[in-house]
Amino acid sequence: MIVPATPSAATPLAEAAIVGVDWGTTQRRVVALDARGEVLRELADDQGMLAASGRFAASLAAVLRSIGPLAANAPVVLSGMVGSAQGWHDVPYLDCSVSLHDLGARLFRVPDAPDAVDCSIVPGYRWQGVDGAVDVMRGEETQLFGAIALGARDGWFVLPGTHSKWVRLRDGRIERFATYMTGELFALLSRYGTLASVLRDAVDDDAAFARGLRAAARGALSNSLFGCRAKVVTGALAAASARDYLSGVLIGSEWHDALARRAGDGVPLRVIGTASLARRYARAGAVLGFDVITMDARAVQLAALSALQTSIGLRSVNRL
Amino acid sequence: MIVPATPSAATPLAEAAIVGVDWGTTQRRVVALDARGEVLRELADDQGMLAASGRFAASLAAVLRSIGPLAANAPVVLSGMVGSAQGWHDVPYLDCSVSLHDLGARLFRVPDAPDAVDCSIVPGYRWQGVDGAVDVMRGEETQLFGAIALGARDGWFVLPGTHSKWVRLRDGRIERFATYMTGELFALLSRYGTLASVLRDAVDDDAAFARGLRAAARGALSNSLFGCRAKVVTGALAAASARDYLSGVLIGSEWHDALARRAGDGVPLRVIGTASLARRYARAGAVLGFDVITMDARAVQLAALSALQTSIGLRSVNRL
Repeated sequence: MIVPATPSAATPLAEAAIVGVDWGTTQRRVVALDARGEVLRELADDQGMLAASGRFAASLAAVLRSIGPLAANAPVVLSGMVGSAQGWHDVPYLDCSVSLHDLGARLFRVPDAPDAVDCSIVPGYRWQGVDGAVDVMRGEETQLFGAIALGARDGWFVLPGTHSKWVRLRDGRIERFATYMTGELFALLSRYGTLASVLRDAVDDDAAFARGLRAAARGALSNSLFGCRAKVVTGALAAASARDYLSGVLIGSEWHDALARRAGDGVPLRVIGTASLARRYARAGAVLGFDVITMDARAVQLAALSALQTSIGLRSVNRL
Repeated sequence: MIVPATPSAATPLAEAAIVGVDWGTTQRRVVALDARGEVLRELADDQGMLAASGRFAASLAAVLRSIGPLAANAPVVLSGMVGSAQGWHDVPYLDCSVSLHDLGARLFRVPDAPDAVDCSIVPGYRWQGVDGAVDVMRGEETQLFGAIALGARDGWFVLPGTHSKWVRLRDGRIERFATYMTGELFALLSRYGTLASVLRDAVDDDAAFARGLRAAARGALSNSLFGCRAKVVTGALAAASARDYLSGVLIGSEWHDALARRAGDGVPLRVIGTASLARRYARAGAVLGFDVITMDARAVQLAALSALQTSIGLRSVNRL
């Protein structure tokens, strides 16, 4: 948990020009920026959507008190699962025909915000493919908006995590995207079932990660997953290396699938993630022969907030 | 649990000529046959490998008392995970160059069986592919041995379950096989994580199963799995149908992978399973354009025991 700067009687806290809340299923990250986009204060807690369920307004009021003073009319922008059917308000998905450039004009105004705060939820996106294929995102669109604000508006964007996204942007428009349950499967398999016992007491093993990446090219994921166990019981893989092998299999499955869909595309591939995840994806790219540009997830989120503040500010001016 | 026939003072119990124990990770099935291979008595309990760990001899002694009298020198044959590193004895895997025809001569004699019973463990098989691919089975080899005893010694054999096996037999020899973590993933995803909540209150939906089967052809499993959730939250799939859709995705992933590996093979495809699982795989075959021959798992297991009794009997005769 990142604690807010301690208030001091000598130096009154600067008022925030915008507060962003990345409100996910289990975690919540809050940041207060000044008018120039500089971070004044930030905090993180475990009051995610599930924990705050049924008392979102009170939960937001409490966290706003913690994050310190807001300037008059300073917007509060929420993104992530808080806008889902299980969240505070079920904000309809945008269709991918709506450019990310227009995201600031498509925010959902929260009608029951505490203390009459100017509070909005960023809508997610829905992609519709052929044969009834469909995919959804909530939260990642805000990061992509931030990437665009930083000048990256074309190419493939990978947002690794519980539900990894591979997104093809063309001049700020989402052309297509695909979600992979990579992080969730890793967590489930590490905790329960056949593989869990061999994944304990793991050591870092880049070579095992690379082997897993390559094994994932050979066929079905459910077969490669069992292969991890088969390798350990036959002595072909040290149990301590099984965690990195499994990580390679899961991330590799994502890469091989995504590469098959973008064959010959030849555009830049950017990973938006925390340092450790971005490094892992960059290593996967190196093993599979692709250069990866990494973008820090926090920097992208801050850029998104700054850019949203500008568009919300413009909206307010137009209202006058 | 199948209870043994009630002993009666009027009619003394017939002595068993062989007892088979299918001793898996969590379940145990025991059957006593007469010399003609007819079932005298059977039972099932939850004293699998994990529950019996550290006291296998006592656990076997107890279950033999329950199953009733054995003829003098009647063999007791154990198969499944009881022969693994976490089981009673770590019985080495056979290489696939050893024909299943020779399985009866390769049993592992248990040195510490209770009451000097003639007790053996059936060894599993290890398959070694190119590029370091490796796979293992324990228990399924006994079923395949039974299928051969019933005259089926060529073609593809599917043994669905927690860890589904697709096995290519050629004249009783295992040419190759692949394991898919299908049942385990279904169980994990039904119980934990993002999909669990939408899988409750399910109804039977053959059409959703078929949709899942076809969706699995499109790409990575971790993407199709998230697709199940995306379809529900966008209204493209009723939540009550998500369980059969997920089942289709998981089983379909197995089928598409196995079919890619056996393209143009044109040999019979047999499913060895319980009635409900065999029906599900037969339906998958019908959707994907393949005829499936189903073999009942219990009938195959009984045939294996009868055939093992003959080979163990021959071994005893040779010893005289």
